Amino acid sequence: MARKNANGAAAELDAVVVGAGLAGLTAARELRRAGRSVQVLEARDRVGGRLLNEPIGDGKVVEVGGQWLGPTQYRMAALARSVGVDTFPTHTHGDTLAEFGGRLINFRGSIPPLSPHILLDFGRAQRKLEAMARQVPLEAPWEAPHAREWDSQTFSSWVEHVTFTDGARRIFEVFVEGVWSAQGEDLSLLHVLTYVHSAGGVDALIDTGGGAQQDRFVGGSQRVAERLAEDLGDVVTLGAPVRRIEHGLDHVVVESDGASVRAARVIVAIPPTLTGRIVYDPPLPGRRDQLTQRMPQGTVIKCMALYEKPFWRERGLSGEATSDVGPVKVAYDNSPPDGRPGVLLGFLEGRVGRELGRATEAERRAAVVECFTRFFGPDAAEPYRYIERSWAEEEWTRGCYGCYFGPGGWTSYGSALRQPIGPIHWAGSETATVWLGYMDGAVQSGERAAREVLTSRPSAAASGSPPAAARPRRGARAAPPRGPATAGR
Amino acid sequence: MARKNANGAAAELDAVVVGAGLAGLTAARELRRAGRSVQVLEARDRVGGRLLNEPIGDGKVVEVGGQWLGPTQYRMAALARSVGVDTFPTHTHGDTLAEFGGRLINFRGSIPPLSPHILLDFGRAQRKLEAMARQVPLEAPWEAPHAREWDSQTFSSWVEHVTFTDGARRIFEVFVEGVWSAQGEDLSLLHVLTYVHSAGGVDALIDTGGGAQQDRFVGGSQRVAERLAEDLGDVVTLGAPVRRIEHGLDHVVVESDGASVRAARVIVAIPPTLTGRIVYDPPLPGRRDQLTQRMPQGTVIKCMALYEKPFWRERGLSGEATSDVGPVKVAYDNSPPDGRPGVLLGFLEGRVGRELGRATEAERRAAVVECFTRFFGPDAAEPYRYIERSWAEEEWTRGCYGCYFGPGGWTSYGSALRQPIGPIHWAGSETATVWLGYMDGAVQSGERAAREVLTSRPSAAASGSPPAAARPRRGARAAPPRGPATAGR
Repeated sequence: MARKNANGAAAELDAVVVGAGLAGLTAARELRRAGRSVQVLEARDRVGGRLLNEPIGDGKVVEVGGQWLGPTQYRMAALARSVGVDTFPTHTHGDTLAEFGGRLINFRGSIPPLSPHILLDFGRAQRKLEAMARQVPLEAPWEAPHAREWDSQTFSSWVEHVTFTDGARRIFEVFVEGVWSAQGEDLSLLHVLTYVHSAGGVDALIDTGGGAQQDRFVGGSQRVAERLAEDLGDVVTLGAPVRRIEHGLDHVVVESDGASVRAARVIVAIPPTLTGRIVYDPPLPGRRDQLTQRMPQGTVIKCMALYEKPFWRERGLSGEATSDVGPVKVAYDNSPPDGRPGVLLGFLEGRVGRELGRATEAERRAAVVECFTRFFGPDAAEPYRYIERSWAEEEWTRGCYGCYFGPGGWTSYGSALRQPIGPIHWAGSETATVWLGYMDGAVQSGERAAREVLTSRPSAAASGSPPAAARPRRGARAAPPRGPATAGR
Repeated sequence: MARKNANGAAAELDAVVVGAGLAGLTAARELRRAGRSVQVLEARDRVGGRLLNEPIGDGKVVEVGGQWLGPTQYRMAALARSVGVDTFPTHTHGDTLAEFGGRLINFRGSIPPLSPHILLDFGRAQRKLEAMARQVPLEAPWEAPHAREWDSQTFSSWVEHVTFTDGARRIFEVFVEGVWSAQGEDLSLLHVLTYVHSAGGVDALIDTGGGAQQDRFVGGSQRVAERLAEDLGDVVTLGAPVRRIEHGLDHVVVESDGASVRAARVIVAIPPTLTGRIVYDPPLPGRRDQLTQRMPQGTVIKCMALYEKPFWRERGLSGEATSDVGPVKVAYDNSPPDGRPGVLLGFLEGRVGRELGRATEAERRAAVVECFTRFFGPDAAEPYRYIERSWAEEEWTRGCYGCYFGPGGWTSYGSALRQPIGPIHWAGSETATVWLGYMDGAVQSGERAAREVLTSRPSAAASGSPPAAARPRRGARAAPPRGPATAGR
């Protein structure tokens, strides 16, 4: 049922947004700022999507979803500032550990003291990868000079081809697992190149200081989403999974379990694979549907062990570790700003995540704590609490960190990723061109989708036919003049 | 709403089947034969799934979906016989054409007279492929001796690696497009090996006489499904897309637009990617869900041109053609048994199908007829009718011929493909171990899923609690004793 206004006619909003993650909330904020009427429908009973705080007592939290902010992630930094959420540096003081080829090595800086053969081999391949990545046009990766060739092979095949040492291959494996929570064979080389370019390089993806893991949010990353939602007010409806989108030339009716809303346009801001699970009436073109069959979510279980204090710091360890053994292959100190309690964070990624996803929580806890003990000593053996989140199990995400294209995806379906279909627009970090897959990309995508709506041809609502819903709501500025009447597709 | 019996209590069937394609109908028939109560819920207003007859006048039909029967497809042959549908040989009399490297060649037999270098190169690679394929255990491809290595690369990468001539590579390209309606880069080498093994070899897949295109069904392949459905009677409900499956230890409630049915078990007999679009309560395990994110459907548009008579036959041509130019890369004589009208059939597959899927029907018709004219002469230029079906556009299939795994799929998710989840069982040709992806595989999968249900632990219905629905319906034999109480998972 569409909402009725006082006269009993169906009220019509300017836009509905599906999903109250960062992308959807950003889009809604932009639309509200431009004076448009909007409603956000969120399946869960909370906002934030893949951002999720878990309370650990004393008003403190850890994040069981996305958590870091890095340099050049300007949009996310500005958004956090705008809602008054501060950041603090990830703890990196002390030695980092590398468990590699059966040895546990302490080192400082970002480069572990491995054999020069391995470092040279990896470095050479990394430079080659980055040089190729820079050739990928971020707005259209399928137009890269060697797009077809790069999209015809897995990243594994490329690594196998360009490296000479097993050591370099193992570093690439940890890199892929850490960045995509997938294996090299899951990813198209072209996807890796696109992603690396969108982040600005390999080091930007993997580094803590100076990279994507540099800073954290005071109060937890989800607070940014919560503040955004507070500002939006009753525009956000929780517990309303969208099941069906009826669409015409200039309207949509978005039906959820909780509410059904008529609007001029809809922004669908959920992972591509989940957009394929909504019923569209009329059905979407085959090309868009087949895209959604080809962008699977990664597999990661985020695990944390809590200790009275960060005992590793006293021993000169940063808490950061990398391992080619696993099952935890990357670990971080994830303690709150004041260092109490001490929190060790480990990821179970890709194949390991898929396998341990079938184990019990007790088995995973034992496996994770065993790794922490191997890295940081016997004091790690007895955490007072263990926290985990397996994102493949989450009905409204179905995998993290994000999704990816296997071979053939970008060249055959890439151009359908952002292309609106009539009044249906697409957002979500997977549709970003900068920091694709990160919070920053989510914000960019929400801004871009809002801009598409604002510059699309005047809708029925805008031309005044159903007057009730088009008026600015509280806090919104007066509507600026419409942009040029460019079609949305 | 669950069905109510006379006492007002929810009646419970032994099983619900989702999907009235060959797999679902076969499963329902097997269950009915064993005396079980069953209901089939079908989204479309017809049965047959990817089997679909199109009337062309005078009581004749052509098939716009699957149509052929080959040697060793014993289950499908037996099924057709059992419902009284006869077969007739695909027309192959006369010269076959091969447009290759810019030349149009006439030849007889299955091997075009190409350069010996190319034929030797292709033959050597084919033998290598088949030797590897035989090592893949069909029940568990992920346990093949080199599973990890074979699943880490695209079929493109393997072809690039093992062939020496561009010609052999082009033959492999036409092979992949013709068999999977996809490109070599879309497919895991392990998937190709599994598929080839399940069919019994490369020639079994591509040949007309002696291969999977050998015979056709009198009255069209869909007639087999229609006859099956007639025998099942009012057990089949059309126009009832299933949206939600609630499941417990020993029951399911299957909700469709049209009806809602409570049963002890459900067999979901639709393509894997579409199984992921149903809402499950409780949600399915992450591993199963992530599987459904990784089995995309291929892309094919089946196109036919109708002429008063099969003029090519008079010129000594069989109507069969292969081209490395396209857009039609394989063509067949698809005339009815009596040769009137003359029907030329061409497929737009893989990349070509994706690209021309965005064109208008008129553009596709022009492109297809241009190919037929190039192959068979100017008489092909003016068909009196053009028929096409683009399966990616079909809401309840979303791509043909079937689905496939890209790299990484079989080794990480393969074991979730058939594994039941509580009372939920999976069927469909994609779950077959013999003639995977073909009608024969669909029948095998339906029989296997029915057997799972019949040998699962006694359900609530069987133990007599809700008595109404467990009684045999008309035509069903008395229930035999249950099999051993093995759990379904």
